[in-house]
Amino acid sequence: MSEILVEESVEPVSAQQASAAFDLATYLANQKLLVEQALDSSLEVVYPEKIYESMRYSLMAGGKRLRPILCLATCEMIGGSVDVAMPTACALEMIHTMSLIHDDLPAMDNDDYRRGKLTNHKVYGDAIAILAGDGLLAYAFEFVATQTKSVAGDRLIQVIAKLGRAVGAAGLVGGQAVDLACEGKPDVSVETLDFIHRHKTSALLEASVLSGAILADATEADLERLTTYAQNIGLAFQIVDDILDITATQEELGKTAGKDIDAQKATYPSIWGLEASRQKAQELVDEAKAILMPYGEAARPLQALADFMTARTH
Amino acid sequence: MSEILVEESVEPVSAQQASAAFDLATYLANQKLLVEQALDSSLEVVYPEKIYESMRYSLMAGGKRLRPILCLATCEMIGGSVDVAMPTACALEMIHTMSLIHDDLPAMDNDDYRRGKLTNHKVYGDAIAILAGDGLLAYAFEFVATQTKSVAGDRLIQVIAKLGRAVGAAGLVGGQAVDLACEGKPDVSVETLDFIHRHKTSALLEASVLSGAILADATEADLERLTTYAQNIGLAFQIVDDILDITATQEELGKTAGKDIDAQKATYPSIWGLEASRQKAQELVDEAKAILMPYGEAARPLQALADFMTARTH
Repeated sequence: MSEILVEESVEPVSAQQASAAFDLATYLANQKLLVEQALDSSLEVVYPEKIYESMRYSLMAGGKRLRPILCLATCEMIGGSVDVAMPTACALEMIHTMSLIHDDLPAMDNDDYRRGKLTNHKVYGDAIAILAGDGLLAYAFEFVATQTKSVAGDRLIQVIAKLGRAVGAAGLVGGQAVDLACEGKPDVSVETLDFIHRHKTSALLEASVLSGAILADATEADLERLTTYAQNIGLAFQIVDDILDITATQEELGKTAGKDIDAQKATYPSIWGLEASRQKAQELVDEAKAILMPYGEAARPLQALADFMTARTH
Repeated sequence: MSEILVEESVEPVSAQQASAAFDLATYLANQKLLVEQALDSSLEVVYPEKIYESMRYSLMAGGKRLRPILCLATCEMIGGSVDVAMPTACALEMIHTMSLIHDDLPAMDNDDYRRGKLTNHKVYGDAIAILAGDGLLAYAFEFVATQTKSVAGDRLIQVIAKLGRAVGAAGLVGGQAVDLACEGKPDVSVETLDFIHRHKTSALLEASVLSGAILADATEADLERLTTYAQNIGLAFQIVDDILDITATQEELGKTAGKDIDAQKATYPSIWGLEASRQKAQELVDEAKAILMPYGEAARPLQALADFMTARTH
């Protein structure tokens, strides 16, 4: 659907010009609204109410909805529709929410607050929080399988494989396992830190971008470019997260600030310093934007989203 | 592939005759070996080793492998091959193992032993046990999606939808949530008890049978019969589990016996008495066997497996 034709007569706009002309704030607000409407109607509260309420409590607790928005934006850039990608977009947020609920548990990071609200286990107890995570993870796959329309079964199977890999031991779970093992160790290597972030953060961001592309029947060349784009913004996202953990106040962040320092976690700023970390994040974002130039105007949302990675304050 | 032709001239053997002629012990041993070989090669230990070792520890900890064997047997009865069903059979065991790991956690049932071995969190700690469960659940879906050969994408999507539903809040997770809520309450109604078991036990047994059938391209009539079969053996399985919890010794059971009584859990024997519970289980099994008579000799494994539900002592 999407072989890129760069006509010689058309001078492609620079990535900077493109994203300057694009109103990201309005775009994000609109897409977030669409995603939250879809999430809201994805999960009804039925008997046994407590488990569904617990799942909904975290699923509807706000957040940037960055993963669903990346999925929708990529699908549209390659020529697909929002409707085709929405079930997968919702599934990505269900998976992300599961990882937050389980990471916050006393047995893991032991966090009391998330997005300015009490964490799931503080409201529903540890047992229900564990089950709510399991329920969201299982439902993510069921939801993609039952709700996706107008996509060939074989392509949908590829999407499901990507989602599964991104959250399992080869993705999120593996990243969190190494992260936990590093806690209290100030001498963590850059390689280990890279492993943690590539698995804990980038894997699901990459799956968000690539699943949107696959749903729109992307070519191999598309997938290659989008993989670089996704890996770059994933790492930039994590570097900025680490920077924010040091510089932001608790109010801005909606979670306990300075936790990484308290736990003596290795972070990019602790290894490179704040200024070099900011510069590295900017370079990654610039490269991510440049690689999408062949798509012309259609790439504006994804390019603006890359900028958003370094510009955000929470 | 499987419209059942009951020819008038052929006198179908009775369910009892059929299963009598079938050597269940040899069949179970063979199938269990096949499943364990497939499970063993499904999951390699790579970096970060601890999470993979933890996943393998519980996945390879023995057990009857009843869910995979039901899936394979159903696929074969409808005319499919073991090879076609094996990835789904493995996924069913991964999902079942996930539910055991999470149920055993201190925040849930707080069990120290399972199948005669220390539970996952007693060996690896609570954090890794939670992550190992998440990893197995995610990998189950990835494994079905990437390893299943010679099945149309649309049918595989149906299998994935069934697996997701069986483990989520509409299945296992919902059953466990109600089970936890009932702990310490001796006045639990039969309706609530039924809900717990239909969701906590039968849902995944039913998914095991029906996924095997779907992989073999079963007809609606096949699926209807097999749904009744699966629901009956699921309930019989749970009744026998409750009976065994009262009558079996800890050594036979491989887990802490009498736990249900200690926790004041409502069980079928506590409501109906031991003898009536045994009789009810037998009736369910007889009906399950009878409904498969149209399949003739091909139904023998599934009929013998139904008998196994009431005959087992652990």
